[in-house]
Amino acid sequence: MSVHHSAPPLRVLGVDPGTVRTGWGIVERKGRALEFRAAGVITAKGFHSLPERLRAIYAGLVEVIDNCAPQVLSLEKAFLAYNVQSAFRLGEVRGVALLAAAQAGLRIAEYSPAEIKTAVVGYGRADKIQVQKAVFALLSGGRAPETVGLPVSRDATDALATAVCHLTTSRLAERIQEAEDRGRGLGVGGR
Amino acid sequence: MSVHHSAPPLRVLGVDPGTVRTGWGIVERKGRALEFRAAGVITAKGFHSLPERLRAIYAGLVEVIDNCAPQVLSLEKAFLAYNVQSAFRLGEVRGVALLAAAQAGLRIAEYSPAEIKTAVVGYGRADKIQVQKAVFALLSGGRAPETVGLPVSRDATDALATAVCHLTTSRLAERIQEAEDRGRGLGVGGR
Repeated sequence: MSVHHSAPPLRVLGVDPGTVRTGWGIVERKGRALEFRAAGVITAKGFHSLPERLRAIYAGLVEVIDNCAPQVLSLEKAFLAYNVQSAFRLGEVRGVALLAAAQAGLRIAEYSPAEIKTAVVGYGRADKIQVQKAVFALLSGGRAPETVGLPVSRDATDALATAVCHLTTSRLAERIQEAEDRGRGLGVGGR
Repeated sequence: MSVHHSAPPLRVLGVDPGTVRTGWGIVERKGRALEFRAAGVITAKGFHSLPERLRAIYAGLVEVIDNCAPQVLSLEKAFLAYNVQSAFRLGEVRGVALLAAAQAGLRIAEYSPAEIKTAVVGYGRADKIQVQKAVFALLSGGRAPETVGLPVSRDATDALATAVCHLTTSRLAERIQEAEDRGRGLGVGGR
């Protein structure tokens, strides 16, 4: 067995949670290439009560997980909020996202905003437009973003950036895990 | 039809959310009497990751709702937290509780800690022991709390207090609603 074996395919769901708009994006790593799979925004605008919004966001994420079968949920670490109230509201959306992922058996990874920006742009204090441009550059394969179906929505590109962050930063940890699994005689594969 | 008709039976689930222990309690109003139905604590102690804890809390609440068929979820309003981090964590538990209730078609009511203490003890700054004593006095029918199955756990008595708060403070609003429904020719009943 070669030490420089290629990485197993890995499909990651990135989610950018919000009470009104929750962005999501699926990115897959095949060998060394990152491939855009799908992305979108779950809008809970039409629902007037918080519980109905949470229900819509949960149902939307369950559908995405069913359709795209990701192995990992990558989420922005929550540690900043304008105030305690907005932390409660964001926590409620995070709760249903984490629940949907746990119920489907996904692994869950969390990254700080600076980690995500560093992984995607190479600069931890990049702004939203720089993140979007970098996501497009990484995932469009040199073509115009629209032609490969890349979304223009910021919520969706933020979600894609979170997925990309997991794929680029987790590789080392995974190779250590794989080496350990080989040492214990376990196979390595997706779910 | 008498203006002083008796209240329709109403079964309320009170929940005291926490990442490690989530208390719940079911109280029913029949006529003017409040009756204790069931209570307990969902402990997520055995689960090491937050998503697994959320999954356990959600599953526990879904089971309570299925078994007891409450019409309303009564929840303490979240507006105080030691810090933003604890607000995120509490928000995540609130999110799965609100989701379970919304999926089962429950109405949702929220009350501030002062409203709950005023409704149960008659004093908005009552401490936890006073709340527990008042809940026992209201729901034990003069018997020893253990003999009617009332729980000793604070998390469960806090949840029962939240349910009692809804039953005692919502009566006026409901009578107005019932009058409006009669005006529109609608029946009044449970879900």
